[in-house]
This record gives sequence, C-alpha cells and structure tokens, in this order.
Amino acid sequence: MSEPLNPFYISQKRNMNLVLLENKDFIDNERVVLRGRRFKHLISVNKVLRNDRLVCGLLNDKIGTGLITNVENDSLEMKVHLTDDPPRPLPLTLVLALPRPKMLKRIIESVTSLGVKKIYLINSWRVEKSFWQTPLLKEESLRKQMVLGLEQSRDTVLPEIYQKRFFTQFVKEELPQISKNSLCITAHPKSSRICPAGINKHITLAIGPEGGFIDIEVATLKEQGFSSYHIGQRILKVETAVTCLISRLYS
Amino acid sequence: MSEPLNPFYISQKRNMNLVLLENKDFIDNERVVLRGRRFKHLISVNKVLRNDRLVCGLLNDKIGTGLITNVENDSLEMKVHLTDDPPRPLPLTLVLALPRPKMLKRIIESVTSLGVKKIYLINSWRVEKSFWQTPLLKEESLRKQMVLGLEQSRDTVLPEIYQKRFFTQFVKEELPQISKNSLCITAHPKSSRICPAGINKHITLAIGPEGGFIDIEVATLKEQGFSSYHIGQRILKVETAVTCLISRLYS
Repeated sequence: MSEPLNPFYISQKRNMNLVLLENKDFIDNERVVLRGRRFKHLISVNKVLRNDRLVCGLLNDKIGTGLITNVENDSLEMKVHLTDDPPRPLPLTLVLALPRPKMLKRIIESVTSLGVKKIYLINSWRVEKSFWQTPLLKEESLRKQMVLGLEQSRDTVLPEIYQKRFFTQFVKEELPQISKNSLCITAHPKSSRICPAGINKHITLAIGPEGGFIDIEVATLKEQGFSSYHIGQRILKVETAVTCLISRLYS
Repeated sequence: MSEPLNPFYISQKRNMNLVLLENKDFIDNERVVLRGRRFKHLISVNKVLRNDRLVCGLLNDKIGTGLITNVENDSLEMKVHLTDDPPRPLPLTLVLALPRPKMLKRIIESVTSLGVKKIYLINSWRVEKSFWQTPLLKEESLRKQMVLGLEQSRDTVLPEIYQKRFFTQFVKEELPQISKNSLCITAHPKSSRICPAGINKHITLAIGPEGGFIDIEVATLKEQGFSSYHIGQRILKVETAVTCLISRLYS
C-alpha cells in the first residue's frame, strides 16, 4: 500500500512488486540476467515485454529500476539503475513462540513485508515439540518466505531469524541484551491492561503461541522488564494478532 | 487474545475457543448433543472428557458454559448455561474488492474474528473475472469461514456478506445509504495522506484489490464522500492490509 517509487511503475498483480536481485545476477556493472522463478513470474504473471521498466532492488542494498533489454525463451536481460534507499526498517524486535508450520510460513512473509528485521523464534510450554521438526525452519526455506515478503513490500533488507529452543535460558541470558534500550512488551490475553498504541520508538515484542504464554513464562519475561498487555476481548489467531499488534504499536 | 470468560475456561489449542451452538443442537431447554465436526474437534484436538466445562455460545445469541455430561463414540452431550452477551461488534462496514479465492477464505475468517459484521464484496477493474466463479462465494462456504472466525474469537453473531458485481451502480446507488453517518475511508496506496488512527466511531472502509483501485474508482468513491488514505510506504498483501487498517482505525 504505497506510492509508486517512480514514474515507470507498472501495475503488478500478486506480490512481485519489486524484482529482488543478487550480485550473482549481474553480468557486468549494470546488466542482469534473470532465469527460473523470477523470470517465469515476470513473463506469466506480470506479462512483461522488452522495453518495460520494473522496480528492482539489490539484496541488502539500493532500489531503482530495470529496463528490459532482451527477452529469450528462458531468460531476460535488464539494464538496472539503483539509486534509492530501501524503506526504513520497523524498529521492532519480534520474539515469537514458534507457530505451527503453515502459520509460520505466512507470518515470516507478512512480518517481513511489514518491515521487521529481527525475529527470534522461541520455545514455550504450549509450542508442540513437533513444530521444531518442520523443514520450513531450514535456512533456505525461511529465506524463501522472507524474499516473498521483500518482493511484496519493495524492500531489499533480509531480516535475521534466530531459533531459540530453551525458553528460560534465552529469556534470562540473551533477552536482556537483545531488548536493551527498547520498550519491552509481552502480548498476553490475560493482562488487565490494553496495549499502548502509536509508540514511535524501538520495541521488543514477545508473542506467545496459540493459547498464550503460561503464567510462569509471563513472570520470567516480567523479571526481564517485559510488561504484559492485551489487545481486546477477542481471541485472535497468532498470525492476525501479530499484524494487529505491529499495526497498533506503530499507528 | 482475551481474558477467559469465566473460571471454567480450559486452555484450548487451535481455534475452537467457543463451541458455537445452533437451535437444532438442543434436545431440551438446556441440553445439547454434538456430532460431526465439532464433536471430532473437541475429542481429538481439545481432548475433552466428561465433566469438563467449555465456553459455548448460541448462534446470534448469548454466551456461557457447557458441562459435558456424556461422551459416546460419535456424540457428546452438554448441559449449557448461556448468560453473557457476545463481545461488542466492531462499528465498521467493510467494502472489499473481491480478493482471489484462497485469500478470500482467510480474510472472511480473520475479519469475522476481528468483529466485523457487515461485508460488501464488490467488483473493481483489477478484480479478475474468474474470482466471481469460485465456489467459496456460495453461502454455505462463506458461512463456514465465518463460523471459524466466531469460534476463534468467542463471538456468536454471524456477519452479513453481500456480493455486488457492478462497481459504479453499487457505489452510486447503494453505498450512500450504507455509509450514511459513518466516516468514509478509501484505502489507497497512492494517496498523499496517512490513514488516521484511533477513530472510535462508525467507519465505512473501502479496500481495493491487489494493485489497488484505479483512479476513476477512487474518484467515484470520492464523489460519495470517501476520502483516500495510505498506510505507509510499503505495499502489503490485501489480507495483511485489511488487518492493519482495522487495527489502526480502532487502536
């Protein structure tokens, strides 16, 4: 939901609003060749043609445009000109009890599109042990979801995702350093206080699994300075709650 | 994400946080028999036993508890006591360009869980014609998604969903009456104004398809009093944007 970056913007359905480039795509200083997924998506969904200009960005780097100079059967070539900074990251560190695999996939994509750059996936009493076995936690799989989120939101900066399988050790030994100088919030349905809105500073936000953190976990987080807040009377799915909380905190 | 309704609350994984009853489930004034989906979910996911108490609600009516008095192979019986009002509806009328089927399903469930009670699915230039053919638009299918949303958020009041296939006719002839006395907002990425937050009044919110409403549609909405706003530099998926907007407007 954004102003097009430049006058060459082409209306694009689905979620490749930016062509994310990597260094290895470059054949010289300014020319790239695309094959595979991106090529297929651009041809079949975006229906691009020679001389079209697309919004492009280099991974963890600048954003700009690419002029399609040649289209072959299995590849296309663009001349790119990358001049602008990617959108500002959201000053939020997300500490999330590992959701079930299908939901994990969608959450990684959506929080990436919202601009979150640091995600800690942690264990918690109500996280089913089997969730830690999912191949979706492998680096290339997480990266795939993040790339979809970046392409969607026209960003280039890949989030960092950390996996922490020991709740108490993580919260007591690592979280104090991670959350230093930030507002520390535990989203907790049983809290009596409603979550603040429109905070424009760095936040570390801890969100429990379906069913919530258990009381001792909330207490352990509280010892590290995390105050707990609810976001209303309704129980929401974790994926809905994550988006609601982020939108509320930065409204 | 809510305070349990009563001390008999049982931690429940997944999304049946309330057992939604219908009049036909009652075998007398206070006893119900459940079979099929709800029975299976309660047994296999929630692992309920005789003498457990569950949060229950009667469709479009009160909420309370049910005491399981008997469990058979294919059914269970509860004695229910329904005393409380369902959570307040969100004072929001959602006018949504028909999303693609998979997304439609998730959006209906999530906006129901957020408390939206009136949804107009409308056509728009960038809505693919084929989307109107999906069986997911059939009444029983929409109802299924709404029921999941109600069970998730402990609500009983089924939203009303209307399907409007003629954009201009709908906006010019019906929308003025529908949106009367409400704040009228078009979510539009190209707008130069950021969407207001923390509005606590009735809102009619129009959200376009992937790619947004086209300019003439925004203008037609504007003629009916709809001001357009963006929600930031990032382009979001419609399902993420819907949740963000609702959370922001009622933060």
